[in-house]
Amino acid sequence: MIEEQLQFSLRDEEELSVDLIEAQYALKNSKGQNNAKSIVILVSGIELAGKGEAVKQLREWVDPRYLRVKADPAYLFSAKQTFWQPYARHIPAEGQIQVFFGNWYSDLLSTAMHVSKPLDETLFDAYIESMRTFEQDLKNNHVDVIKVWFDLPWKNLQKRLDNIDASEQRWHKLMGLDWRNKKQYDTIQKLRQRFTDDWYVIDCEDEEVRDQQFAQYILHALKQLPKHKTTVRTKWKQAPVPESLLNPSTDEMKNDDYKAELKKLSKKVSDALRNDPRNIVVTFEGMDAAGKGGAIKRIVKNLDPREYEIHTIAAPEQYELRRPYQWRFWTKIQPEEKISIFDRTWYGRVLVERIEGFAKPAEWQRAYDEINRFEKDLSDNQTVLIKFWLAISKDEQEARFKAREETPHKRFKITPDDWRNRGHWDDYLNAAADMFERTNTEYAPWHIISTNDKYSARIQVLKAILKQLKVD
Amino acid sequence: MIEEQLQFSLRDEEELSVDLIEAQYALKNSKGQNNAKSIVILVSGIELAGKGEAVKQLREWVDPRYLRVKADPAYLFSAKQTFWQPYARHIPAEGQIQVFFGNWYSDLLSTAMHVSKPLDETLFDAYIESMRTFEQDLKNNHVDVIKVWFDLPWKNLQKRLDNIDASEQRWHKLMGLDWRNKKQYDTIQKLRQRFTDDWYVIDCEDEEVRDQQFAQYILHALKQLPKHKTTVRTKWKQAPVPESLLNPSTDEMKNDDYKAELKKLSKKVSDALRNDPRNIVVTFEGMDAAGKGGAIKRIVKNLDPREYEIHTIAAPEQYELRRPYQWRFWTKIQPEEKISIFDRTWYGRVLVERIEGFAKPAEWQRAYDEINRFEKDLSDNQTVLIKFWLAISKDEQEARFKAREETPHKRFKITPDDWRNRGHWDDYLNAAADMFERTNTEYAPWHIISTNDKYSARIQVLKAILKQLKVD
Repeated sequence: MIEEQLQFSLRDEEELSVDLIEAQYALKNSKGQNNAKSIVILVSGIELAGKGEAVKQLREWVDPRYLRVKADPAYLFSAKQTFWQPYARHIPAEGQIQVFFGNWYSDLLSTAMHVSKPLDETLFDAYIESMRTFEQDLKNNHVDVIKVWFDLPWKNLQKRLDNIDASEQRWHKLMGLDWRNKKQYDTIQKLRQRFTDDWYVIDCEDEEVRDQQFAQYILHALKQLPKHKTTVRTKWKQAPVPESLLNPSTDEMKNDDYKAELKKLSKKVSDALRNDPRNIVVTFEGMDAAGKGGAIKRIVKNLDPREYEIHTIAAPEQYELRRPYQWRFWTKIQPEEKISIFDRTWYGRVLVERIEGFAKPAEWQRAYDEINRFEKDLSDNQTVLIKFWLAISKDEQEARFKAREETPHKRFKITPDDWRNRGHWDDYLNAAADMFERTNTEYAPWHIISTNDKYSARIQVLKAILKQLKVD
Repeated sequence: MIEEQLQFSLRDEEELSVDLIEAQYALKNSKGQNNAKSIVILVSGIELAGKGEAVKQLREWVDPRYLRVKADPAYLFSAKQTFWQPYARHIPAEGQIQVFFGNWYSDLLSTAMHVSKPLDETLFDAYIESMRTFEQDLKNNHVDVIKVWFDLPWKNLQKRLDNIDASEQRWHKLMGLDWRNKKQYDTIQKLRQRFTDDWYVIDCEDEEVRDQQFAQYILHALKQLPKHKTTVRTKWKQAPVPESLLNPSTDEMKNDDYKAELKKLSKKVSDALRNDPRNIVVTFEGMDAAGKGGAIKRIVKNLDPREYEIHTIAAPEQYELRRPYQWRFWTKIQPEEKISIFDRTWYGRVLVERIEGFAKPAEWQRAYDEINRFEKDLSDNQTVLIKFWLAISKDEQEARFKAREETPHKRFKITPDDWRNRGHWDDYLNAAADMFERTNTEYAPWHIISTNDKYSARIQVLKAILKQLKVD
């Protein structure tokens, strides 16, 4: 238990405030440094324990402009929403502090209390484990998650309910629970005992102690500015490059066959995309000029433009670089988006970022696991991931680059970057090989498609989509 | 009418597609140039006329990755939401193209058709006028708004309804109207006749003509890359600097009086902020060290941290610079946010951006009107704007800068920028004077508060807030 490791005694308020402000500005100024981080404070607990008051007091002691607060009503867990999706957009950038009153744990408790068939303990524990892992990923990516439970004994809670001020009433229903119900109170206490032991539990009987304990714990957390790990000690074990990448098939398809097949398949694909009850995320990676654009065009051929979204991924923006690298994808995949297509993806971390050195070895080497967990979360929440690598031979790429340069309306498509990436051909093959070995999961398999022949490539893409969807 | 000015004839599809792609990439590559712009395409019209099909065909002819599509259900106009708020977040950055199926005009039509008491013509026309002005502001800030009405005669619509394919059904209720009802059809036609004459109307009886007319019109729009106006011909008329800025009052308040008054007022202020039925936006501008942070602290003193949001405005990010300068404020003010406090604001355009030359003369000189319209829209939609300028004398600022440098926990608050801004003291006074003269409106008045004495300043801020709120 954290509270046993921390010495606590009441401090002079002025001094505590000065320390907090200094630590807050030090955090703010760490932005872009090797010890930069941001802090997420999860605030949960028994109603009337004084979560709001403690945060209010904290906000008086710090510079309130750099302590953001978000209070959402509970999101009950639903099939198509991962527990982190409602909060992803508000994960703070380096140097920032964000308080979440509503958070994934309060949602879990609400879900456990509310559903007609209560969550069983195994499922509850599985959620706790996922959350802990997610928080570890955040921490590795410079976001510290601080968890505080505001506790209050039953008797004390009842007394406070008796003396409640009418003007404060509205904050007492955030979790939609009946705090006069002893059985409900006991269930909550029992459930939160199953939380991991990295929660800081504050006994809220004494208000001054409560506010100071909270503030001092935040101060303690603010002061931890560890150096980020960027190097690794063990040697990287390179996976062998699969034959399908070294020598992509050159089988050609006849134009007539292609047209007939395309017509048939694209109708089937649009039906399947529409009728599969899950959300669908189709992703494309591959060498430049491998035909990602052309493949995407054929997927959406029979869809109404209102039915799907295409996300074209370019280099990250500054504000994205100050957050976990997956953040821009966490926020792009929306539960209400039925069909999403990604032209380049989160795999940039282990491809271009690895090769160009934008990600340090420790960063890209742990990214495989992070990506697998991300995809598992989506897959567990009714989202199909269909991942393509479009493979092309080096000669064919050169031919296409030259053709682009010579065709007026294709000239825009080719940039000096494309030629530069080509210079790293073997590095990309190696990176791709490692990626397949480590991220070709049952729930999100890779499809390697040779695109030396565009026609057969497009047909294969459509067939692979059908294979992963629920087709009648 | 636009369609009369444009020659139309069917073109070879290949050639049209090549032209579209070239124009699309030219637009994309204009990013950051003096002729950069983005394009918003508003798509409205009679059901079954083929809006979706036309956009689908367009998306096949262009590079679909750089043509984003958004389709929202209708937002009926409500008291606390301006017509542009649901769309603000999706206003495209320079170089991008965004199609809005649902848009402010379809919302207006839906509102006009749905409300129990239909919109009268004067109100309808007033909305149209606001929309036209908003679009002009967008255009001045490099976002072209293209409006296309897909029209279909009554008889033809009925025939299409007879032959409708079951799988397409779901798109026909987007506006929630009964397209079998002749009176409703006539009302819509009558209302859209009141639109401004910058709509491009496409007669959709022939599908091929429809798709080509639409695509050719978009091509025409894509090709307009005008040079942005940055200079002005007329000489700027500088407003005289008010006495309250030249010589801020130095009246001092006694600590005891301050404490008593603060206690009384801050309770009143929190009650008023909570109980006023409108949303409240409190904004702060003023010289560095004038005490914005301290004033904000006293405003929120009696509020729960879940009740308000503080927006601290720093220099814009790259992705914000590629959009209209007001965009980052359009997207920050949310209808569901009851109390918003801004530490620095959109007035940066006519203060720091004017002084440092980040905004060109033509840009900051037209910003006053743009800001007034923005504030009027908010005010018309149940939002109170309470605007503060905190005035300080040059000597007092110097004393505070020095005090900050000498106090450990305040040292973080002072940066080289602060001293540099101080070097522009008179420029800021002049810019502030112009700002008061041009943006001190009835619906959003300025409060100039002398902060040489911090105590009396904070009290005055609280009193000014009470003055603008509905207090029982």
